[in-house]
Amino acid sequence: MTITIIGIGLIGGSLAITLKENGFAKKIIGVDINPENIDKAYRRRLIDEDMKMEDAIPASDLIILSTPVDVMIKLLPQILDQVTDQVVMDVGSTKMNLLAKIKDHRNRKNYVATHPMAGTEYSGPEAAVPNLFDHNCTVICNPEESSSAALEKVKALYASIPMSILNLDAKSHDVHTAYVSHISHISSFALALTVLAKEKDENRIFELASGGFSSTVRLAKSSPEMWVPIFKQNRDNVLDVLDEHINQLARFRSILIKKDYQKFHELIQESNEIKRIIK
Amino acid sequence: MTITIIGIGLIGGSLAITLKENGFAKKIIGVDINPENIDKAYRRRLIDEDMKMEDAIPASDLIILSTPVDVMIKLLPQILDQVTDQVVMDVGSTKMNLLAKIKDHRNRKNYVATHPMAGTEYSGPEAAVPNLFDHNCTVICNPEESSSAALEKVKALYASIPMSILNLDAKSHDVHTAYVSHISHISSFALALTVLAKEKDENRIFELASGGFSSTVRLAKSSPEMWVPIFKQNRDNVLDVLDEHINQLARFRSILIKKDYQKFHELIQESNEIKRIIK
Repeated sequence: MTITIIGIGLIGGSLAITLKENGFAKKIIGVDINPENIDKAYRRRLIDEDMKMEDAIPASDLIILSTPVDVMIKLLPQILDQVTDQVVMDVGSTKMNLLAKIKDHRNRKNYVATHPMAGTEYSGPEAAVPNLFDHNCTVICNPEESSSAALEKVKALYASIPMSILNLDAKSHDVHTAYVSHISHISSFALALTVLAKEKDENRIFELASGGFSSTVRLAKSSPEMWVPIFKQNRDNVLDVLDEHINQLARFRSILIKKDYQKFHELIQESNEIKRIIK
Repeated sequence: MTITIIGIGLIGGSLAITLKENGFAKKIIGVDINPENIDKAYRRRLIDEDMKMEDAIPASDLIILSTPVDVMIKLLPQILDQVTDQVVMDVGSTKMNLLAKIKDHRNRKNYVATHPMAGTEYSGPEAAVPNLFDHNCTVICNPEESSSAALEKVKALYASIPMSILNLDAKSHDVHTAYVSHISHISSFALALTVLAKEKDENRIFELASGGFSSTVRLAKSSPEMWVPIFKQNRDNVLDVLDEHINQLARFRSILIKKDYQKFHELIQESNEIKRIIK
């Protein structure tokens, strides 16, 4: 089938590679307001053709919306205005506001809300990689609001990668992603700023930083263009988890001030429970 | 040469593999108060022989102290009491208190304070891996307090791996490691506790957690037996960096409360500077 990808960055570009490689897509049309991204997408051979959005929609069987989430909220109603029998899916990190926006659209059933749980700290077409999504989980939100034909097409796409599918309502999705994704990014941004603020001697960071440090700050390389809109859309959930995170750090602070090393030991043991959950 | 390793865990065991593999050590003697560790060390073929510490010291050319840092502070004076021409080195993560403890020991010059900047979140002999240290940096603290013969032997050991060497005074070492290692661990412990506290549905964490989350919480698997003594030894520096980290998180919180997304964008851009430093 012919697939249009609107927003050829890390996620859109990686899907382009995967879906072309496994034969799910016969042709990939790229849409991007940034001509430089289109140029890079051709050079990386991510797309077969580029078009303006209004020309790409009628030429496609499936449209994948993979822009930053604030742009999705603007584009999705316009895309749905134009579709006839095309299926539309997004791959965004927040869902409540997006789904509220098109809840009563006459073509709502042509659209499936999805979130493949994968990514890296890099962005743009040059960051696209094969196998980014393999064997990870994708969320489908509010599937009852989509037609079964649209759902089947989108499920077949994810099965072709392959990814497993988890159904969640939009509200639960936004709460869970605040926990397992969004707070990690704020933690990394803050850690990078902490070290950059305290450690004036950058050569020392470079020489001394081992795998542990790199691992906890790598998300601090993430793009503000992608992440600020996510925090804006999911502000209340993120604030809730951020408050809890600051409280947890304050517990460690208070324990250090009181030199209560027995309690410190207990807290580390408690946090070790994450072993059961994360491989 | 014959090398005694006191404390056969992740670091001691990994050194045992490397130094035997590259021929720097002809024989490795293992010392560990935990008989289970000795048993595991034999099964993993990390050691050629095990002895009590007082028998191992005279039988060795070089003694590597790789216990948790609180145990080092107890053992190092005892080891130095007993050495004749043996060289002693430690591989601990904190240095100020340890070096103060043996500053005036009559055999101080036989000892070299080192800290190879490498590790994983796992511990014990079963966590020992080949190539853990390759091409990383090792710190040598206060080299002027060691004899040149002892220094040469220890430098030859690290060159054999190979690791590069950075000389720092003990105080600077403890300040820098608080920035580039210790705070990352507290951040991970707190993040794990945050998610465990807020996310009651563990299956959801398991299904949804992608690489980003795993990367920021992996250090939360680290052992309290190793880490509490480090935080105890380096308490003042860690508190200082932890305060700064909480302040940075509070900035993100305040920005979210005020919905100042322009400022959020600027902070992320600022934190992106870490790209220049971390590969």
